Amino acid sequence: MSVKLDFEKCGGLLPAIAQDHRTGEVLMMAYINEESWQETLKSGYATYYSRSRQQLWKKGESSGHLQVIHQILVDCDLDTVIFKIEQLGAGACHTGHRSCFYRAVTSDGLQEVEETVFDVNKVYGKSSE
Amino acid sequence: MSVKLDFEKCGGLLPAIAQDHRTGEVLMMAYINEESWQETLKSGYATYYSRSRQQLWKKGESSGHLQVIHQILVDCDLDTVIFKIEQLGAGACHTGHRSCFYRAVTSDGLQEVEETVFDVNKVYGKSSE
Repeated sequence: MSVKLDFEKCGGLLPAIAQDHRTGEVLMMAYINEESWQETLKSGYATYYSRSRQQLWKKGESSGHLQVIHQILVDCDLDTVIFKIEQLGAGACHTGHRSCFYRAVTSDGLQEVEETVFDVNKVYGKSSE
Repeated sequence: MSVKLDFEKCGGLLPAIAQDHRTGEVLMMAYINEESWQETLKSGYATYYSRSRQQLWKKGESSGHLQVIHQILVDCDLDTVIFKIEQLGAGACHTGHRSCFYRAVTSDGLQEVEETVFDVNKVYGKSSE
């Protein structure tokens, strides 16, 4: 498989949108570099690049909340991808929500529109993803 | 409405994911700066920042393919947003597809998984969005 993304455009990092392959819910957005892209293709699990830790980040490696790749879509400019995934475990967000996008903009500011689905302390212990 | 996004983190630009508010289909991903964010909130139409043209980009201003905001979701880190939109006109992509994500990664490379839905020459003329 030889799919070349345009990693040069943005300093080596491109956005990857993780979307539930059945419901279409967007669960998170994170960045990939060339190495994490290749690792995702090879392993079949969503693997990002953590900007804060500056290292490969196999999502769910510590929590068990892995993301199984079902399909990968690539945009017209070859600089953004969608990982259509099956989210293992209860959710993707380090706050305990299924999706990182659990808040909506309202006239009163941000309002939570999704409840938490897992206990962060039990899943992550004292570390965070 | 006072929703502060973390524009400082990424040099003033944050990713905005445009998602069909009814079907959940992700139509495009583009960037917003503080000004385009405020303009989106004020106008009710998705307004991005064009990195290539270095200016505000009201999506669909020339093509008529405007994006009406139905809801805005904000992620846990306040550095990515989802615009839940109604896409006016046939599609969002400058290639004539409804979604910019019209290609899938396969063992033979990229394969189109969506047909074109409008004539690019008729909609954009010689310019491109």
